[in-house]
Amino acid sequence: MNRPYNFSAGPAAMPEAVLRQAAAEMLDWHGSGMGVMEMSHRGKAFISICEQAEADLRELLAVPPNFRVLFMQGGGLAENAIVPLNLAALKPARAMDFVVTGSWSQKSAKEAEKYGDARVAATGSDGGFTSIPDAQGWQLRANASYVHLCSNETIHGVEFHQLPDLAALGCDAPLVIDFSSQVLSRPVDWSRVGLAFGGAQKNIGPAGVTLVVVREDLIGHALPVCPSAFDYRLVAENHSMYNTPPTYGIYMAGLTFQWLKAQREGDLSGVAAMEARNIAKARLLYDFIDGSQLYVNPVAPDCRSRMNIPFLLRDESRNDAFLAGAQARGLLQLKGHKSVGGMRASLYNAMPLEGVQALVDYMRDFEQHQA
Amino acid sequence: MNRPYNFSAGPAAMPEAVLRQAAAEMLDWHGSGMGVMEMSHRGKAFISICEQAEADLRELLAVPPNFRVLFMQGGGLAENAIVPLNLAALKPARAMDFVVTGSWSQKSAKEAEKYGDARVAATGSDGGFTSIPDAQGWQLRANASYVHLCSNETIHGVEFHQLPDLAALGCDAPLVIDFSSQVLSRPVDWSRVGLAFGGAQKNIGPAGVTLVVVREDLIGHALPVCPSAFDYRLVAENHSMYNTPPTYGIYMAGLTFQWLKAQREGDLSGVAAMEARNIAKARLLYDFIDGSQLYVNPVAPDCRSRMNIPFLLRDESRNDAFLAGAQARGLLQLKGHKSVGGMRASLYNAMPLEGVQALVDYMRDFEQHQA
Repeated sequence: MNRPYNFSAGPAAMPEAVLRQAAAEMLDWHGSGMGVMEMSHRGKAFISICEQAEADLRELLAVPPNFRVLFMQGGGLAENAIVPLNLAALKPARAMDFVVTGSWSQKSAKEAEKYGDARVAATGSDGGFTSIPDAQGWQLRANASYVHLCSNETIHGVEFHQLPDLAALGCDAPLVIDFSSQVLSRPVDWSRVGLAFGGAQKNIGPAGVTLVVVREDLIGHALPVCPSAFDYRLVAENHSMYNTPPTYGIYMAGLTFQWLKAQREGDLSGVAAMEARNIAKARLLYDFIDGSQLYVNPVAPDCRSRMNIPFLLRDESRNDAFLAGAQARGLLQLKGHKSVGGMRASLYNAMPLEGVQALVDYMRDFEQHQA
Repeated sequence: MNRPYNFSAGPAAMPEAVLRQAAAEMLDWHGSGMGVMEMSHRGKAFISICEQAEADLRELLAVPPNFRVLFMQGGGLAENAIVPLNLAALKPARAMDFVVTGSWSQKSAKEAEKYGDARVAATGSDGGFTSIPDAQGWQLRANASYVHLCSNETIHGVEFHQLPDLAALGCDAPLVIDFSSQVLSRPVDWSRVGLAFGGAQKNIGPAGVTLVVVREDLIGHALPVCPSAFDYRLVAENHSMYNTPPTYGIYMAGLTFQWLKAQREGDLSGVAAMEARNIAKARLLYDFIDGSQLYVNPVAPDCRSRMNIPFLLRDESRNDAFLAGAQARGLLQLKGHKSVGGMRASLYNAMPLEGVQALVDYMRDFEQHQA
């Protein structure tokens, strides 16, 4: 029997092959006599798992050597505090500029106020977060320690398809991106990024692992009130084992990385293959929505997310029937975020094109049979 | 084939039945069509898992109704900051008193200096952390926001077999206990505790979940610099879902709680049964060590840990041979912590008496056959 298609925004579907391998190794990893959950993080077995995961991630995302990869805890929401705790003091003014394109960047800006002079440099709130403000108009400050944006807004479905070139905008501050729901769906232009962070529970693995990729010169500036466990310098110096890391989550992330490396799409492999697939998946759903009379996605076409596609039914009284029918067809977790309502289909790497086709087929049937 | 016996101090052995159930449910939890890792934390399925885990824990530990149970992230080490971030301001002086009986309480005292007037009220450092200073001599301050101790020192093997009655000592401050390596091995006297915290990776489940049990009146006093994700008030108000919780870890903890509830030892069940078993396991190993010529445990008998039993070989040149022979017999992860050397046998709930007997048998053979 085929598994249902799971469109959750996160924690989200995992590749079936990854889950099968994890189940098979649950009681005994590679003849060690221990499951991965039962291993000391200081032992050779787990250290090899963690090192391999980092190496595979570096390869997949082409992380430059002058960036450190950290596996942390707390998710994107904790990083909203941990980033300013570590980077606010890069310049004496502790100024931080935020480009707000949805709920997540809005939360990030709010939380940073605790640690310095956080200010919104641009916001898409007037349009209900359906477009990205033109970078030429961003109010960036010369004394800012960093500029923050969320490269894909999971709730509003707004994605940066190109990261801004801050230097070309006359800004020498490093760019911080929250790529929780974008990571590994496409390549990253590291020449434009100082720090990227993301919760694992979309495209990486189980909730409880946070990925931080940070340029070395940004490490070592933590405020005195930064908890040691979240001080990037201590985490980096201890290879993500300053405190006991979320070992099983790192293992699952590592299995996902190996699965990703093995993916092929024509001549492409790894993240490039995933990007090609993700473009095709998103196009299939957006094209159908735009051609329908019942469904609508409000986001400007140039910044529509490939990962999270929110859509409304023009007749909202049919929402419950839509969800019940989807569930009956094995199309799961399509309910939209409470703050925007309607539906949301998240098309992370683990979602095959066939799943999107099944969704579109159902949506067409549902539209045609409305009485 | 029997599984090897795994004596890791943490992440540590899990009950085999729990691992088997987790493996069986990896791709499909209770017919939902999703593995637990793939579920939205906002959905009915995961909420039921989380609520059941909390209810079972409350029953197992007899947590009073005026205490909140929080599932957090960061482990004990992060709580070394999170506790003072939340409790230092209980009184204006932000004074915090620490009873230091080993590495962990020492780290806690050091970290708290960032957030107020942290002071060591008593320390066992002069004796190399082999005994607990008499409570009558603790230098407790009248203006202290709280008093902190580690109820079981995982590295030094020093355990409080009775928690201090601070009120009887003339102190009205709440007692904070780090019970990372003691939790669920025995009952807790909540009348003497204001807050208890612990990393999951010893007696609860996989690393990456932190358990906090906190009296309600201690919630709501966070310092302005406390990250929202670690503000007990926000975590409590949102039933541990202010940020995405470590869902799979909570599920594994819940399976462990169900396993614990089903344990029987004579007329005893649950934690009382585990305590009886843990007393028997520890006695078996300590009695053997004390009667041997080769092995030594330096801790005073009245505060020897039931959970973590460090021991040295009087002939340290034989350490490597001891570990290699143990490994060959399926006795794993016995190497002591680097800071104290020698060996350490951790006898958490998942370790059966048969495992301790196998260890003692090996230790006897090894001693008798030394050339």
